[in-house]
Amino acid sequence: VLESQRKIQARDLLLQLDRSRRAPVSRQLEEQMRGAIRSGALVADEQLPSTRVLAEDLGVSRGVILRVYGQLAAEGYICLRQGAAPTVRAGGLDTRTLPPRNGGGIVYDLRPHLPDVASFPRQPWLRAVRESLAHARVADLGYSDPAGLWDLRVAVANYLSRTRGVTAHPAQTLITAGSTHSLSLLSRVLARRGDRRMAFENPSHRILRAVASMGGQTVVRAAIDESGVRPDTIDQAESLVVSPAHQFPTGVVLAPQRRTALVDWAQQAEALILEDDYSAEFRYDGVPTGALQSLAPDHVVYLGSTGKTFAPALRLGWMVLPEALMDEVSRELACNMLHVSGLDQLAFARFLQCGDFDRHLRRMRQVYGARRSFITGLLAELLPGHEVRGIAGGLHIVLGMPSHSTAASVRLEAQALGIGIDSIDQHSFADSAGPAGLVIGYGALPEPTLEQALGKLVEVIRRYEEMHQG
Amino acid sequence: VLESQRKIQARDLLLQLDRSRRAPVSRQLEEQMRGAIRSGALVADEQLPSTRVLAEDLGVSRGVILRVYGQLAAEGYICLRQGAAPTVRAGGLDTRTLPPRNGGGIVYDLRPHLPDVASFPRQPWLRAVRESLAHARVADLGYSDPAGLWDLRVAVANYLSRTRGVTAHPAQTLITAGSTHSLSLLSRVLARRGDRRMAFENPSHRILRAVASMGGQTVVRAAIDESGVRPDTIDQAESLVVSPAHQFPTGVVLAPQRRTALVDWAQQAEALILEDDYSAEFRYDGVPTGALQSLAPDHVVYLGSTGKTFAPALRLGWMVLPEALMDEVSRELACNMLHVSGLDQLAFARFLQCGDFDRHLRRMRQVYGARRSFITGLLAELLPGHEVRGIAGGLHIVLGMPSHSTAASVRLEAQALGIGIDSIDQHSFADSAGPAGLVIGYGALPEPTLEQALGKLVEVIRRYEEMHQG
Repeated sequence: VLESQRKIQARDLLLQLDRSRRAPVSRQLEEQMRGAIRSGALVADEQLPSTRVLAEDLGVSRGVILRVYGQLAAEGYICLRQGAAPTVRAGGLDTRTLPPRNGGGIVYDLRPHLPDVASFPRQPWLRAVRESLAHARVADLGYSDPAGLWDLRVAVANYLSRTRGVTAHPAQTLITAGSTHSLSLLSRVLARRGDRRMAFENPSHRILRAVASMGGQTVVRAAIDESGVRPDTIDQAESLVVSPAHQFPTGVVLAPQRRTALVDWAQQAEALILEDDYSAEFRYDGVPTGALQSLAPDHVVYLGSTGKTFAPALRLGWMVLPEALMDEVSRELACNMLHVSGLDQLAFARFLQCGDFDRHLRRMRQVYGARRSFITGLLAELLPGHEVRGIAGGLHIVLGMPSHSTAASVRLEAQALGIGIDSIDQHSFADSAGPAGLVIGYGALPEPTLEQALGKLVEVIRRYEEMHQG
Repeated sequence: VLESQRKIQARDLLLQLDRSRRAPVSRQLEEQMRGAIRSGALVADEQLPSTRVLAEDLGVSRGVILRVYGQLAAEGYICLRQGAAPTVRAGGLDTRTLPPRNGGGIVYDLRPHLPDVASFPRQPWLRAVRESLAHARVADLGYSDPAGLWDLRVAVANYLSRTRGVTAHPAQTLITAGSTHSLSLLSRVLARRGDRRMAFENPSHRILRAVASMGGQTVVRAAIDESGVRPDTIDQAESLVVSPAHQFPTGVVLAPQRRTALVDWAQQAEALILEDDYSAEFRYDGVPTGALQSLAPDHVVYLGSTGKTFAPALRLGWMVLPEALMDEVSRELACNMLHVSGLDQLAFARFLQCGDFDRHLRRMRQVYGARRSFITGLLAELLPGHEVRGIAGGLHIVLGMPSHSTAASVRLEAQALGIGIDSIDQHSFADSAGPAGLVIGYGALPEPTLEQALGKLVEVIRRYEEMHQG
């Protein structure tokens, strides 16, 4: 169906006739088209121009083209049918037979970073694209402000202050390609001004630590307990990355008194807190905790993205900056040259403005809340000796394990059986501090598949335990 | 219309009731909502939940909510109307009154980098978004391959080999956020392996040189003449950036014998040629010249983007790499974390596959070709003493000027009158080599506006010449 809409013209084929050459024009054309098919420049099923169109384009008689097409058809390169456009038969590089990228052999994906992309609201999103395109100003389709589309910055600032309690002014709200992009920018800006020690919770997401290192930061550790990060354990740092709403990977929430202590630390040490508010929209047990940022907007950078809440494919996030950082970060963003798609920004602004994003989040809260109940119930029944940890929020739980090495062994065995899963030790600093556990994401899979995946995981755990008890 | 679709619920408002506090629940609610409106967390015209919904959400009686809403309405914070949802009246931070970003005071934009975004094919693009979303696999909406969506890589490789004669295999075709992104990646990869001298034509686009420097390259110069770049003038470099199809800014095309000489140079010096094929799709005088890359696919990196041919807002480009560079560049791209929107990749793949991109290019060739004829005719008539230079291609012409300093003065005077324009000296190395001229882009403006803009520009030039002749 699609192929039938494609029409190729002579100029698209790069056909060139040299009328000064001895070889007849038809021979030259024949050679060039045969070469194009052999080399893969023309692939199977592509439509060729009609004899009339090609003759006009090249300024030759239609008879010449008829001879060329006839010869190529006789040789099996193209296919001629009465009343239909000629098409390429085969013989070129058939790129569609190449292997697609490999998903790493994962059959059941329980990795904690995956939302339920199957629930992507295709219809509402399409409507947002349509309406935003219909209303887009011409300037919106050109080179846009590297800080983001103004209308989107306004919509995001309103959204964040309304739902997360963030003190957000649109002028201090910047659009990025997501939280890792934001962190990468901030790491470089801080490093350039000489602030090169960035603290991370132990454990914390290893990819974020890698991003900070690549951005010129020395990564230092901060201890956590069941109330969240302990600022008194930070040994000299100019910044600290935390996830107060739902610590990754342990799943604890930063306690109120700890929030105050953290802000005190930042003010005394003149340090910056980078609040990674990933998946904070998802709380299933009541009203969510507001963002830390509102306690000290001058000492906290707020980072958010649509990767967990909407779709990783969108590559859209934001940060809210203290005024003192605005100039430097904006400049870094402008030099970065990697502005976020303006078309997506237009559509997402619309999606936010008309309440579709709120609706989507409400729906997903129900979906994920039900999944979390399902998975915790199932694990309590199947593995009564193992504790399920983490607040009723986000997209993952922690299943307690007797030791980090047990957790790592179970993870590797599960992976060998096609179950993608994380364990806490993967995200720890070298010493693997704190309680051990498996990090089980329930975002990506619906209940029946979750049940199958957990059934297999439980088998792995039981087998491992039997072997090491006996 | 839009506002009426928005519904805010209690959890979106972060309302929290502390039932242990002395203050009555209604007082707590009142204070919190008043604070939210004052602080701008709720902005004018936003809809509030109905009394029934809010009462349910918070687990209080409907009478409590009625009292709270009544009090806030009496104070002028919210607006209650029979049969309609309550809305916020005003008092918060009204972000819609903030000034939008400034376009630099440009009224007539003759800068050479701008395509005609007003001709963006909104309907065909929307269809591509719709059809690609309808057919998207769930995995396409998740975290995608940093090298780009496979289907798009296949479509781009086919497109490039078909229309530009590029020897492109999808596995060596990577998706980027555009040519500056590609150049930035390549600069870093080459610098890391010790290849730190990158040659650029003099003159050449200053922003590309800045990107190379930021990526760790020492920028060295290569002279050009009317046949394009002269490889014999390159004083030691491991790479060279060229635009063979339409040199920026001079508008010359790289002559056939020079292409051979350039490839010889690359092979002897074991150097890499970075072919910036920007706007090569636009030739108005016959069949376009094929890409240099096909002469030596192992020594040329091909760079392209949709910025000039489609819309800068899309942030989508590509590069075709020699096999020897694949591993390093793919790794750099993966670490870069800044993957291009998967939704845009899906849509653009569809747009290419069904022939819409070819159709769009054919249409734009006619539009730009007519504009170029119009502008050259007008300038020949109004300024017979000034040469119009550059091949009939791309989106800009060069208007010859007696000296670089004259060109620079005219540019500044024109800018003061609201005419955005470039001159060759802006893109030269320090010595301002070669013939002087104004670089006039005709991509962004339709003929009537072009005529006005050129009329004003001609006035500036005449005035300047009269002053300096008298």
